[in-house]
Amino acid sequence: MSLTVVGSIAFDAVRTPWGERERMLGGSAVHFSLAASFFTDVRVVGPVGDDFGESELAVLHARGVDTEDIERIAGGRTFFWRGHYEFDLNTAHTDETQLNVFGDFAPKLSPASRDCDVLFLANIQPDLQREVRAQCAGARFVAMDSMNLWIETARDSLIATIEGVHALMLNDAELRMLTGEPNLVRAAREVMSWGPSLVVAKQGEYGAALFHGDEFFALPAFPLEDVVDPTGAGDSFAGGFVGYLAAHPDDELDAPLLRRAMAYGTALASFNVSEFGTERVARLTGEEIRDRVGELQRITTFADAPLALRG
Amino acid sequence: MSLTVVGSIAFDAVRTPWGERERMLGGSAVHFSLAASFFTDVRVVGPVGDDFGESELAVLHARGVDTEDIERIAGGRTFFWRGHYEFDLNTAHTDETQLNVFGDFAPKLSPASRDCDVLFLANIQPDLQREVRAQCAGARFVAMDSMNLWIETARDSLIATIEGVHALMLNDAELRMLTGEPNLVRAAREVMSWGPSLVVAKQGEYGAALFHGDEFFALPAFPLEDVVDPTGAGDSFAGGFVGYLAAHPDDELDAPLLRRAMAYGTALASFNVSEFGTERVARLTGEEIRDRVGELQRITTFADAPLALRG
Repeated sequence: MSLTVVGSIAFDAVRTPWGERERMLGGSAVHFSLAASFFTDVRVVGPVGDDFGESELAVLHARGVDTEDIERIAGGRTFFWRGHYEFDLNTAHTDETQLNVFGDFAPKLSPASRDCDVLFLANIQPDLQREVRAQCAGARFVAMDSMNLWIETARDSLIATIEGVHALMLNDAELRMLTGEPNLVRAAREVMSWGPSLVVAKQGEYGAALFHGDEFFALPAFPLEDVVDPTGAGDSFAGGFVGYLAAHPDDELDAPLLRRAMAYGTALASFNVSEFGTERVARLTGEEIRDRVGELQRITTFADAPLALRG
Repeated sequence: MSLTVVGSIAFDAVRTPWGERERMLGGSAVHFSLAASFFTDVRVVGPVGDDFGESELAVLHARGVDTEDIERIAGGRTFFWRGHYEFDLNTAHTDETQLNVFGDFAPKLSPASRDCDVLFLANIQPDLQREVRAQCAGARFVAMDSMNLWIETARDSLIATIEGVHALMLNDAELRMLTGEPNLVRAAREVMSWGPSLVVAKQGEYGAALFHGDEFFALPAFPLEDVVDPTGAGDSFAGGFVGYLAAHPDDELDAPLLRRAMAYGTALASFNVSEFGTERVARLTGEEIRDRVGELQRITTFADAPLALRG
């Protein structure tokens, strides 16, 4: 009953209208791991350079994340991303990307990581995702993310990867781009015809939508007066969502369970964006998560009442 | 217990990827009236030209809308809008606008229209909205819409109008533009500090959010495989929302009532967009509306369950 995540481990430099950080812990696998660590045992797989130190590892260890499969490349430097957000926090503007050790990443999974119950393939090159997926043949549930770059440059490989997973989690604009289908319902249906039994459309400040066979569920983002840094929100959402499912190995992936997973993902994402990088999630408590899920339920619930309609 | 709406009555020419119409009944007051007619008595106020005929009036009469205050300007022509949508149906592209009789519109309300219980000021020039609002001094509840044009060209007048209403219903991008506040929670709070006790942020395909004091509620749009023509969706939403409130003259405007109104607005909007212009709503039934509200509830409900979180 463990969860393995393969993805990027990074240093991020981020500027938003509310401040900036020159160098902070980031990367999809990091944000995912921290979020998922509230639910289950997490093993993180990814490369770092010599510049990745004990203080970065300590953030993961404090949340109980297993870092044995973080591969340190001697003489290399850790993946670095510099970006900024304008007042519209929905769009990240990339100012600089240094792939560094991530450019030659060949995921090496220890037996323990391969033996996972649940696998999350964060956004990396789709050939690599497929290799990792093949190494975890026994995984009960496999979910993946991707991005516009791979849709544009490696679409066939990406589709081959999607065919082999249970869940695709993608931004709604990317789902449209991937399928060439402007209607989100049809786009999700198209993806499900390739293999996955469920599709999560991430919608940024608008929340997320879940497609599961003929079932649909949507949840708004938690309303926040202070969104400080959206970096990693999608990965925190995925960590909450997939982590929640990993914590229920004996339950059917039915609508009630999947919807709860959506709520936990939404809660984790809302904490992620309220401070820079991993700062908020690193000191988050289970009680805060539970309270936020309760609040989410409260702000999305309505009850109909009898009324005679005319017509 | 009647509802008066003042706004545009139009002929629309619309092209979408799924077809086109050269001349169909449209306008904010028309879409609003038809939607609201399922809930209460509706009186529509607005100007038309000689080209507005019996077949157009018949659409309103079939839904019981009172058209006594539709002012026919002799020798004039009805407001005409031509637009198109690309595959992204969220953005309307205007190709042609002929204000015609709408350019000199000076709303004239009959005593019956002035005596309304509820008033909706659809998107017209804010000075005119304020004049109408003053004529309906006894209205228990007044809601209004506006648009980016008036934010850019008549902001002070628009704010003066907003100060005198109970509810502002606006696209979320326009709320940000109006307040200069990129955060939607803060933007809504700013508007409420001017006077309105509630703000509805219309979010297109993502649904709508309600701000009411410290209360928040959000509802996704109903998922549709075939969105044919989004024209009038916001006005149909407003018609369902305001119409629902008008049908409850003795109820407090508390969270349960307002949330139900959001659901009925969402249902009406979903029917509006599934065919061109007024075509779908014109033959809609109360039972279909009620079924869709039930379905909306089903696809937005989740229940938490006990789980030991780590941390």
